[in-house]
Amino acid sequence: MDKRAEVMAAHERFYAAFEALDYDRMAAAWAQRETDVCTHPGWEALFGWEEIRQSWRAIFANTPYMRFEATDVRLEIWEDVARVSCVENIFQVFEGANLHSRVACTNLFVRTEAGWRITLHHGSPIATAQQLTQPEEDEPLN
Amino acid sequence: MDKRAEVMAAHERFYAAFEALDYDRMAAAWAQRETDVCTHPGWEALFGWEEIRQSWRAIFANTPYMRFEATDVRLEIWEDVARVSCVENIFQVFEGANLHSRVACTNLFVRTEAGWRITLHHGSPIATAQQLTQPEEDEPLN
Repeated sequence: MDKRAEVMAAHERFYAAFEALDYDRMAAAWAQRETDVCTHPGWEALFGWEEIRQSWRAIFANTPYMRFEATDVRLEIWEDVARVSCVENIFQVFEGANLHSRVACTNLFVRTEAGWRITLHHGSPIATAQQLTQPEEDEPLN
Repeated sequence: MDKRAEVMAAHERFYAAFEALDYDRMAAAWAQRETDVCTHPGWEALFGWEEIRQSWRAIFANTPYMRFEATDVRLEIWEDVARVSCVENIFQVFEGANLHSRVACTNLFVRTEAGWRITLHHGSPIATAQQLTQPEEDEPLN
């Protein structure tokens, strides 16, 4: 399996664990280091596996159902580090209502002795419209 | 200068350009590659320098005053890639009122021939309270 396929498999294991609301699978997807970082949408960043794992326990305890569809997946791989950016399209059922939300996501993976593991997850809510009007045309400067 | 100091200098150049609302300095802080990623708080991710530079033009055109104080700065450096996480404490003046907001931030830097440059910026608004009750606060790890 090439590096790209290995990283994408690690990415998919992370989301499969999230959908399954399965703490053990989520733990297995992480590097579990003191330098791990996890920023859930709207949250402060959590630093270190100990804090991060507690957040997954809390989230899984409070989430009855969740489905992900990742779109706009973009990958960059260096030697032992890889970045995957994506949009998380999240489908939830909450008190009988279907909710769809979109989260802009940065995931970083490191190659460990056991394979690629996630070491940073940063998700941020996407507002329905960009906050500033972007110029249609722009003079190229450089 | 050691690697850590080099990366922190690149980090400070990025925020100095942001505070100065200076497009040329901001452009000089970036790697300017097609794989660059920038997610402003509440926005979709922007991919590639062309899209990203237009966003800085729009932001600078719409921002009269902005000051940053970075706290909780955490650094990890690999061979030619480095991550800096921080909280951006943002002070703005808007229609005569002082505004303070906090943004959880992930910045990635790559080592180019010209030195360390930012290649990913991801900022997300921090809500005043965490969305789920967390078991307990943790001391910073480093």
